[in-house]
Amino acid sequence: MALIVQKYGGTSVGSAERIRAVAERVVETAKAGNQVAVVVSAMAGETDALVALAGELGGTPPPAREYDVLLATGEQKSIALLAMAIQALGQPARSFTGAQIGMRTDDAHNRARILDVDAECIHRELERGVVAVIAGFQGIDDEGDITTLGRGGSDTSAVAIAAALGADVCEILTDVTGVYTTDPRITESARKLERISFEEMIEMASAGAKVLQIRAVKFAMHYGLPLHVRSSFEEEEGTWVTREDDVMERLVVSGVTANRDEAKIRVHALRDEPGVASALLTPLSDAGIVVDMIVQNLARDGSTDFTFTVPKNDYARGLELAQATASKIGAGGVEGDDGIAKVSIVGLGMKDHAGVASRMFEVLGSEGINIQMISTSEIKISVVVEEKYTELAVRALHAAFVEDGAALLSPEA
Amino acid sequence: MALIVQKYGGTSVGSAERIRAVAERVVETAKAGNQVAVVVSAMAGETDALVALAGELGGTPPPAREYDVLLATGEQKSIALLAMAIQALGQPARSFTGAQIGMRTDDAHNRARILDVDAECIHRELERGVVAVIAGFQGIDDEGDITTLGRGGSDTSAVAIAAALGADVCEILTDVTGVYTTDPRITESARKLERISFEEMIEMASAGAKVLQIRAVKFAMHYGLPLHVRSSFEEEEGTWVTREDDVMERLVVSGVTANRDEAKIRVHALRDEPGVASALLTPLSDAGIVVDMIVQNLARDGSTDFTFTVPKNDYARGLELAQATASKIGAGGVEGDDGIAKVSIVGLGMKDHAGVASRMFEVLGSEGINIQMISTSEIKISVVVEEKYTELAVRALHAAFVEDGAALLSPEA
Repeated sequence: MALIVQKYGGTSVGSAERIRAVAERVVETAKAGNQVAVVVSAMAGETDALVALAGELGGTPPPAREYDVLLATGEQKSIALLAMAIQALGQPARSFTGAQIGMRTDDAHNRARILDVDAECIHRELERGVVAVIAGFQGIDDEGDITTLGRGGSDTSAVAIAAALGADVCEILTDVTGVYTTDPRITESARKLERISFEEMIEMASAGAKVLQIRAVKFAMHYGLPLHVRSSFEEEEGTWVTREDDVMERLVVSGVTANRDEAKIRVHALRDEPGVASALLTPLSDAGIVVDMIVQNLARDGSTDFTFTVPKNDYARGLELAQATASKIGAGGVEGDDGIAKVSIVGLGMKDHAGVASRMFEVLGSEGINIQMISTSEIKISVVVEEKYTELAVRALHAAFVEDGAALLSPEA
Repeated sequence: MALIVQKYGGTSVGSAERIRAVAERVVETAKAGNQVAVVVSAMAGETDALVALAGELGGTPPPAREYDVLLATGEQKSIALLAMAIQALGQPARSFTGAQIGMRTDDAHNRARILDVDAECIHRELERGVVAVIAGFQGIDDEGDITTLGRGGSDTSAVAIAAALGADVCEILTDVTGVYTTDPRITESARKLERISFEEMIEMASAGAKVLQIRAVKFAMHYGLPLHVRSSFEEEEGTWVTREDDVMERLVVSGVTANRDEAKIRVHALRDEPGVASALLTPLSDAGIVVDMIVQNLARDGSTDFTFTVPKNDYARGLELAQATASKIGAGGVEGDDGIAKVSIVGLGMKDHAGVASRMFEVLGSEGINIQMISTSEIKISVVVEEKYTELAVRALHAAFVEDGAALLSPEA
């Protein structure tokens, strides 16, 4: 007997029929002798409809506190319907809003952070053989106000609940069958990973893989809680996200990802002196814009070029802010480009293998792909290329690093 | 400066455009120097959609606790949207769920009764000049579970909140301009009442007028809280529902109502002995069927005929139960008729005027309308007639008792 937390996303509960299928799966898991807590998202499309109404009535952005009150109705609807559907199959179940399980957060509406979960009230139900059906994405602050965790926050809710319960596993049930070495829509050679380490998963998520929220993986890593990403429509095993030690199949490169959601901003002919980078980036962070890659080059004339990427949504505003700062500090000029993609390779094995970066550049070069920016971490290398080369770059890197035998060909340390 | 509670129904907040119009009206009321608390229903259509989903997934009836969790999302959506729309007009506003204003109820899910409201937290906002936007229809029990008050419960929520706040008035804003002497779709002579007593309003509501919930009027009567029923789309004064003493215009008959939502069940040739009525009605009340009119006649042979009405929805089930009891207690037979209407006249003045009943029967007789059942209270007389005569009966009674000068023609005591 195990204590299992299952998280179902919006697509999995997107219609009455699908909710019924989820209920069947939950009941099967319970009948197999497990204690089951289920965390659900809003029905697919529901949140978008609420966001549209808010935009119409509340302006952009709508008032944060009321926006959370509105969005939280989506998950509340899901838990009631799923609890009903489970009961209709003869299995006791009980729904819980964020407030009802004491999902305490800070008061940062729309992007709240979880402080605490009252595991006791869930354990009480589980021990009586009742399935707990819990609203993801929402919590409550010290004032009793409803908060939400930001889009995709249900993953984080599920992991926080699983950690608080001391669950054996947190299953993330979704519309894909697991974590793939790359996007299967780009190359048929993409294959599902059996296991991946938390660290690799975090790097892959930040590099563009959308199967899991980074916050959720970090949370799981902190608590050493295994995640199991699998299909909500099929029975087959998915991908386990676990501690590095538990990852048997240790590839040099576990995955190749692409992210087209960023744009590039370049400020040139800056004076090379302390404080310039901060002068440029502070106005962006004050505006809530998250800067991803940052590259700085010293030019031959002693001046500096400073290039960074921002989410495409924030491109126009980011460019404006950069231009304002540039003219204030007397930079040469600002230019931007939103026709770019960030392509990354991720793998724990890189730590022990030299030459992975140079191999990566060689592969791209042999395809005639020019590299605009490079950024590296211990287990990830990202490059920015022209957007039109995205698929070509992914396929070439996947063939060189991931496909059968490819890892062996990479230069050894 | 007054403290005003405004209640807006589902039609009034049925679309983004209407919510904006409601917001404007709320802001006007606040700008005129009043403290304003607003109670809202779910957007028109929302509850029906949720009920349909529950029917599909939870069976009939769906599990009561989860049904309340589901339905409560409707009002939560409304309060968030209305609070946003009010803020967008520059007026501070803050939404409250039932739980957040401590709307404590018993644990009778789907038809909970209000025990208490935490007026303090609302006063705190009102005194800071903030409009409180409160979810009607929902509350919370001692376990922290979400409850609902039953359909139309938002009226009751509004009155309970107004009473707890010590409001000067509770405005019920709806899609009609007030309480009419009869249904304006039946006769053009119907006219809006300026004032009506709580007692008359209760009788009219139970006799079929749908503008106000009976529970809400009883609540208001108990607290002596004036209600003002008016249009949410127009500025004109509506109808004040107040204490009897405050009703200046004291008509013999204030209103004529018709109710086609009942069916008649007749059990004949019963032995005339104690316990027969209770034997017949107890199985119905155990099945949750509310019996309205009850008439018993002694036949010439010493046996008894027993006739009663039930809601049309419960007709089939009621007939079944009556037949079962009848054969058990050896009655002559059971017959039913769902082609009936209950037509009533209501008026405080009846108390002081004899002969109103006989005049009523005379008017119906002269139109060739046969009376099947009669039931009277101090300020109401109801008759059951064949359904096809509904409009004719209403028009004739309205002409005889309500239209200009008609009251003077009625026989004086």
